[in-house]
Amino acid sequence: MSKGEQTRQFILERAAPIFNQRGYVGCALSDVMEATGLNKGGIYRHFESKEELAAEAFDYAWRTVSAKRRRGMEDIANEVDRLKHHVANFTEQTNFPGGCPVLNTAVDADDGNPVLRQRVRAALQNWRDMLIATVEEGRRSGTVRPDIDASRVANRIIGALEGANLLARIEKTRFPLHDTLIQLDSYLETEVRATSRRRAAPRAAKN
Amino acid sequence: MSKGEQTRQFILERAAPIFNQRGYVGCALSDVMEATGLNKGGIYRHFESKEELAAEAFDYAWRTVSAKRRRGMEDIANEVDRLKHHVANFTEQTNFPGGCPVLNTAVDADDGNPVLRQRVRAALQNWRDMLIATVEEGRRSGTVRPDIDASRVANRIIGALEGANLLARIEKTRFPLHDTLIQLDSYLETEVRATSRRRAAPRAAKN
Repeated sequence: MSKGEQTRQFILERAAPIFNQRGYVGCALSDVMEATGLNKGGIYRHFESKEELAAEAFDYAWRTVSAKRRRGMEDIANEVDRLKHHVANFTEQTNFPGGCPVLNTAVDADDGNPVLRQRVRAALQNWRDMLIATVEEGRRSGTVRPDIDASRVANRIIGALEGANLLARIEKTRFPLHDTLIQLDSYLETEVRATSRRRAAPRAAKN
Repeated sequence: MSKGEQTRQFILERAAPIFNQRGYVGCALSDVMEATGLNKGGIYRHFESKEELAAEAFDYAWRTVSAKRRRGMEDIANEVDRLKHHVANFTEQTNFPGGCPVLNTAVDADDGNPVLRQRVRAALQNWRDMLIATVEEGRRSGTVRPDIDASRVANRIIGALEGANLLARIEKTRFPLHDTLIQLDSYLETEVRATSRRRAAPRAAKN
């Protein structure tokens, strides 16, 4: 990584929590200057505008949070167990300063910041794509019920998690996240996981 | 209503959508002056500070939205049907400009605006209390399963609705709300409503 790239990364690392906590309008350039020890020129050498800085800071926050939420998933062969692990990561892991970047930035950006809004859409799409791909893979391998709509599973998981996140933040308690972990576990077990009878049936037919 | 109270209401009516769309920091007093045609003194005659104006504007937005979401509930005797009606109101009704005030203001206020945060907590508590009271009433009248945890039902409904709301706003589509209506209807029917067998049992025992 060149020195310029290192400085850029350092600015993002420091700016991301501020944007995530205070929002786009609430984060002044002077806040970023203070957090980095750089002057205006030193920051704008690496970013064209506050808009670009905010968008890149969002992506940085999202990458950090996503990595935590996906940690360990690749080690789990069974797709339903992999989804359960993802839900547990989300509800149990420490969050980014200021909370979930998608929740914050969606609310912050949806009334008039098109660049930032585009990044949030892309992040959500990426999250949903990962969940849909996992469900589809499970359908092919037989761990997921064949009649399941992968897109609905993804929306159900994301909606329940982010809704609980919002309640947890207002109430400053983890109960809603804990309840949602139980609720989604039960949903994945009873409505998404293929029953052993279903999986056994084709094998039985072969004999 | 006195002339002073009328003016105060008029200011809230005009300021509430601006605060709800732009957030506390993003809404300048000049925006409220422009929307009302009043000067600074004319506004601050009715509100002590921007903080008080924002808090009252939030309450105004919340009252408006709550009234829409509760419309018609009082005409429904069966408590489970009343909860289903509330969910349908939420997913089908037109929202306040800028979207759900609780969603917006929770995210806006939770990193350092204690007055506004207190209002959001109170609004959420009020919403949850209404749902809990409905479930408890249903338990007493026998329409709701006796083993149900009313607080969990309330969190499940609020979390699912607000999570779907967030997805719908990012995606600019109503599909997540539509899916959540189906999901919560099914939840209320299969997990919350007392089965006829359960309700029939005590009667059968009497004979």
